[in-house]
Amino acid sequence: MSISLKTVPSENSRPRNTREKIIWAARRVFAEKGYSQTRIQDLLKAAGVSPGAFYNYFSNKEELFLEIVRETGDQFRGSIKHIRRSRIRIGTQEELYSALKESFRYFFEFVHRNRAGVRILFREQQNANPRIRETLNEIVFEIQQDLKKDIQRGIDMGLIAISDPEIAAWGIISAVSGVGLNYLGHPKIEQDRLVKALSELFLLGLFKRIPR
Amino acid sequence: MSISLKTVPSENSRPRNTREKIIWAARRVFAEKGYSQTRIQDLLKAAGVSPGAFYNYFSNKEELFLEIVRETGDQFRGSIKHIRRSRIRIGTQEELYSALKESFRYFFEFVHRNRAGVRILFREQQNANPRIRETLNEIVFEIQQDLKKDIQRGIDMGLIAISDPEIAAWGIISAVSGVGLNYLGHPKIEQDRLVKALSELFLLGLFKRIPR
Repeated sequence: MSISLKTVPSENSRPRNTREKIIWAARRVFAEKGYSQTRIQDLLKAAGVSPGAFYNYFSNKEELFLEIVRETGDQFRGSIKHIRRSRIRIGTQEELYSALKESFRYFFEFVHRNRAGVRILFREQQNANPRIRETLNEIVFEIQQDLKKDIQRGIDMGLIAISDPEIAAWGIISAVSGVGLNYLGHPKIEQDRLVKALSELFLLGLFKRIPR
Repeated sequence: MSISLKTVPSENSRPRNTREKIIWAARRVFAEKGYSQTRIQDLLKAAGVSPGAFYNYFSNKEELFLEIVRETGDQFRGSIKHIRRSRIRIGTQEELYSALKESFRYFFEFVHRNRAGVRILFREQQNANPRIRETLNEIVFEIQQDLKKDIQRGIDMGLIAISDPEIAAWGIISAVSGVGLNYLGHPKIEQDRLVKALSELFLLGLFKRIPR
């Protein structure tokens, strides 16, 4: 499986310009220190840039953080959407199953690789800073809308039987992110186990299928 | 349906002694001001007690808050457990469906009636205070374990087909609490709609049942 995790900066993907250099360093600093504990000074030091260079691109810490959140969110959302849609071609339940499974797999791999960053995001989602909270809520809302559309597509194709795609999408996104948060605290749990259990739960439900 | 929401203090259920009076007043103050913004002074004023009376029962704000969280958690957990178990008697899928549905209904009614308090709890779960975080995590863990046991019971009875009751319980609890958090922001959504959609999702799954 070749899923690209573009949102994860690695030593190999060095930034090409000053703006990227600042973002690249800030991802690490925020992940280490959290949002409120990070000072502009820490960001300048980590990026190796002057205050002048910094303020050329970002007016303050909040703006930089929001930019990182938006970039990461857009990339994550794009990847999940691509994984789901590229798998649903012929239109069988098996395909749908594999599409959902792969998008769960991508999510848990993302959480695993971005452990510290994801922890910060969960914390900030309850945070007092309204702009950060709103930005995070918008991203989650968009991901829910994508899933809702895909569920509707499944209904139209005759594969899915559900009467309320909107709430179902809320439920699935909440479950996956809640299990992701739990996974942060239990890193030894195998990703495959989470992926399999959630795919089974959401696609087949708890009930044993009794043939009519 | 007669579900008692004992954890919700009402004007009619006046506290009988000083300790209860403090707890009763503190629930409101914490719900209004949040945990960190509440000062001992606010608690004394709201309860109408002297510092001496307060420190007779609680050594500080944290201890009082934890006591409220534990009491509420125990009552909530007990109610959910009771609702689920008292409904599963004869052992049909219909009964199981109604058991899950009623426990979801209880949850959303609880969120609705304790709007401000629940919001505080969600925020504190990501909070820096480790004792509060741990206490909340313990409560959620216990509720998950109860659900896991009930799922296992359903498996043993031949009603439920799921291979990983533990992760399924994580998923369901996460979904329900995530949807509950969402519901806080969208109070106009009808509870019945949430209850029906989640019961359908968890018991039947997304997939249309294809007769073999």
